[in-house]
Amino acid sequence: MRLGELAERLGCRLEGDGGLEIGGVRGLEDAGPQDLAFLAQERHLPRLAGSAAAAVILAEGWPPVDRPTLRTSNPYLAFARALSLFHPASVPSPGIHPTAVVSSDARVAASASVGPFSVLGPGAEVGADTIVEAQVAVGAGVRIGRGCRIFPQVTLRDGVVLGDRVTVHSGAVIGADGFGYARDGHRYVKIPQIGRVVIEDEVEIGANVTIDRATLGETRIGRGTKIDNLVQIGHNVRVGADTVIVAQVGISGSTRIGSRVTLAGQVGVVDHVDIGDDVIVGAQAGVTKDIPAGSVVLGSPAIPHGEFKRQLAVAARLPEMRKILRALEERLAALEARLTR
Amino acid sequence: MRLGELAERLGCRLEGDGGLEIGGVRGLEDAGPQDLAFLAQERHLPRLAGSAAAAVILAEGWPPVDRPTLRTSNPYLAFARALSLFHPASVPSPGIHPTAVVSSDARVAASASVGPFSVLGPGAEVGADTIVEAQVAVGAGVRIGRGCRIFPQVTLRDGVVLGDRVTVHSGAVIGADGFGYARDGHRYVKIPQIGRVVIEDEVEIGANVTIDRATLGETRIGRGTKIDNLVQIGHNVRVGADTVIVAQVGISGSTRIGSRVTLAGQVGVVDHVDIGDDVIVGAQAGVTKDIPAGSVVLGSPAIPHGEFKRQLAVAARLPEMRKILRALEERLAALEARLTR
Amino acid sequence: MRLGELAERLGCRLEGDGGLEIGGVRGLEDAGPQDLAFLAQERHLPRLAGSAAAAVILAEGWPPVDRPTLRTSNPYLAFARALSLFHPASVPSPGIHPTAVVSSDARVAASASVGPFSVLGPGAEVGADTIVEAQVAVGAGVRIGRGCRIFPQVTLRDGVVLGDRVTVHSGAVIGADGFGYARDGHRYVKIPQIGRVVIEDEVEIGANVTIDRATLGETRIGRGTKIDNLVQIGHNVRVGADTVIVAQVGISGSTRIGSRVTLAGQVGVVDHVDIGDDVIVGAQAGVTKDIPAGSVVLGSPAIPHGEFKRQLAVAARLPEMRKILRALEERLAALEARLTR
Repeated sequence: MRLGELAERLGCRLEGDGGLEIGGVRGLEDAGPQDLAFLAQERHLPRLAGSAAAAVILAEGWPPVDRPTLRTSNPYLAFARALSLFHPASVPSPGIHPTAVVSSDARVAASASVGPFSVLGPGAEVGADTIVEAQVAVGAGVRIGRGCRIFPQVTLRDGVVLGDRVTVHSGAVIGADGFGYARDGHRYVKIPQIGRVVIEDEVEIGANVTIDRATLGETRIGRGTKIDNLVQIGHNVRVGADTVIVAQVGISGSTRIGSRVTLAGQVGVVDHVDIGDDVIVGAQAGVTKDIPAGSVVLGSPAIPHGEFKRQLAVAARLPEMRKILRALEERLAALEARLTR
Repeated sequence: MRLGELAERLGCRLEGDGGLEIGGVRGLEDAGPQDLAFLAQERHLPRLAGSAAAAVILAEGWPPVDRPTLRTSNPYLAFARALSLFHPASVPSPGIHPTAVVSSDARVAASASVGPFSVLGPGAEVGADTIVEAQVAVGAGVRIGRGCRIFPQVTLRDGVVLGDRVTVHSGAVIGADGFGYARDGHRYVKIPQIGRVVIEDEVEIGANVTIDRATLGETRIGRGTKIDNLVQIGHNVRVGADTVIVAQVGISGSTRIGSRVTLAGQVGVVDHVDIGDDVIVGAQAGVTKDIPAGSVVLGSPAIPHGEFKRQLAVAARLPEMRKILRALEERLAALEARLTR
Repeated sequence: MRLGELAERLGCRLEGDGGLEIGGVRGLEDAGPQDLAFLAQERHLPRLAGSAAAAVILAEGWPPVDRPTLRTSNPYLAFARALSLFHPASVPSPGIHPTAVVSSDARVAASASVGPFSVLGPGAEVGADTIVEAQVAVGAGVRIGRGCRIFPQVTLRDGVVLGDRVTVHSGAVIGADGFGYARDGHRYVKIPQIGRVVIEDEVEIGANVTIDRATLGETRIGRGTKIDNLVQIGHNVRVGADTVIVAQVGISGSTRIGSRVTLAGQVGVVDHVDIGDDVIVGAQAGVTKDIPAGSVVLGSPAIPHGEFKRQLAVAARLPEMRKILRALEERLAALEARLTR
């Protein structure tokens, strides 16, 4: 594709020769003389000298460079779009693989595909342009929307609902029973988990994630939310839109997470709390109570970011403080002794 | 079912019209005029006014309400049982799906079922009324008891033993090799893991849980213990009866966990320690040594609950303490100077 | 096998009757009169009296015992090798199971085996003596070396490369998309993840582990590194050789981990940092910046081991320090009052 056309399709401003033929997108180090490269930060600009890249995506405002440039206010976004142009996802042909076991009353759109050894239960629905890959388990009454991609070895248990353009990576289990028991003396009696899970449009769910069905009602993940690998989401949790949940986070039952929230890696959230919109929770933090919208919290138990930093700074000086305290004690005792004499 | 019969089957005391026909069990908000509802806490009683529920389960001792009531000392338990009555688990017909690959010398009870694409290795046994769903891997010599339910895409590796009425959710891997190596200089040499895993009766194992086989001997999970999603249990661990292990807990090799213990979410326990009966370990805690029976511990490293709370309270005052310390230093220096003059 | 031959094959020095016939290897408690037993530590020697073991592996330098002994500088290594001799892994016959779906242009070595319901994509290669068990998903262009073992229900996504003698346990997902998005206002736009994953020789990967493919370039795990269950490794991470990563560790994108490193259980490492060779990171620690080679760090955020221990010791005395501080304040005020009078 010519650089000029590329500029247009990516919504970038072209600096230099628009007739240049571009063959691909690569990192600065790996880019060859037909590649478009990308710089994440201005301070990396000197590395461009050593790169064979034909052209480069740069932020508006960064200094001019020695080769054709695509200027944009959001280089990272232009990079993402360029990758999509040059590396479209490989798509299997529509149709149901002859080895798949599909219930007689399941409905699969003609443009959808179902891979080998996948199983579709009674009443399951697969929407247009959706790809269900190999060895997927789709339970009874599951509804998968349009343009979804379900990678190998995903389990969608009975009644799970997926919106449109949802991606689920391998090994994820959606709709297993929530962890709920009533006590009968020392014994635990299972509370049947008869609710469902609803995943809204454009959600992406990482590998080996677990999202439990609700006891009653539903567990719901809001539009555009992105969930990294090995995350656990308990029964009746509700997550808003455009939220980011990094790997190995655990969210306990009935908790609500707002929209545009970031939960960093390995965060834990207790049950029945409410995390407001636009909250940021730092890595490994433990949320034990409601967090107001817009807050940044850290630590276990999680506290406001500023407070955490202050405590951490003082903690580093604790051994020194202890010494000072002892010295003060001695000096004070000396003074007291002197005044008593 | 008539409310009177329901009262009898749930072991509740009936207040009001026992002839009322009940069609289902729902949460207070969702309940319709044929539904039985459930209140978890007395303080939620005012919400009953806005509910269409026909009848309600209440604890003995809570005030009377404006509709027929099932009274019990344990409303949560009655709720669990009512759900089981109205929503019995869907059960596939007995029999082996024609696509399953079952070793010629595996034994499957006539009342059991084996789903599509499941594989049963040589000598595997599946007990009466047990359901092995789709795409399950059952290794050589595995013994599954009666009335178990093994959800899709579970792996039970060679020699694993499951008692009766065991539930294993999708993606769980039971009996993979323990993590054991001998060092040979800088290199690690694998120690063959030739022990097994034994899961006792009525254990429930969550989605994507991993329970490793023993090096020698066995890894054992005691009767009635409940394990949430994404938990890791190392080789040669022994867990007692009626213990609750919440999501993302990790238990290192050869550790012993007592009975009626609670390990909250994301807890880590080092290897070769002993956690006594009835211990409670708070979320995200890190257990580094033996914990006596009946203790409540928190923090990483875990310390007694009271001590943790005290340290936490003081930690919050650390910046203030540092200021006080500095002020004292100055005042003391002033006094000393004055007395020296 | 006679004890003399065993000594030779394990590289041990024989003390006592080399003609003794040994039937197996067991733990001290379980060993019968034909078994070789193993003691991990000298302080366990008294337990030998109660064991029926025919012979025992002991370290050079430990006192002599009442039965034939294999002496070695590394008893644990001799034990590992003895287990391998007596309990060789069971190996399926070579060949492709008739139910497997193998692309016409995939190449499977004659000595390799592929289990039931496994799927091999276009261009996939399986090397000599490699075992691909049941229900494995092998994507397009995946290359698996010689002598590997891929347990049931592993997913290897397109383009993943495995060296020789690699072991991957059930449920592991290698090569799922990295977690990368560009922001477009509040929305997240997926950055196509078109790099690959390379696993070098003799790596072992635990159950339900996730290792993401690189955005561009590669995610790489170095020779001989051992990864425990439920570990998450982000895109573009590079791990050196002979490193040990214990269960539930999470490593964020583009981070580099050196060789001979130990990351203990539940450790988290942020993105774009560099952990040097021979570093030890304690359980549940959170690494937030570069760690120089040879360091030992603990805590979240992780700090040098000595500093952590000092802070911890002082933290335990915090409530006491607070009392002392208050007492000092009062005594000082009293002195000041006295001097002012």
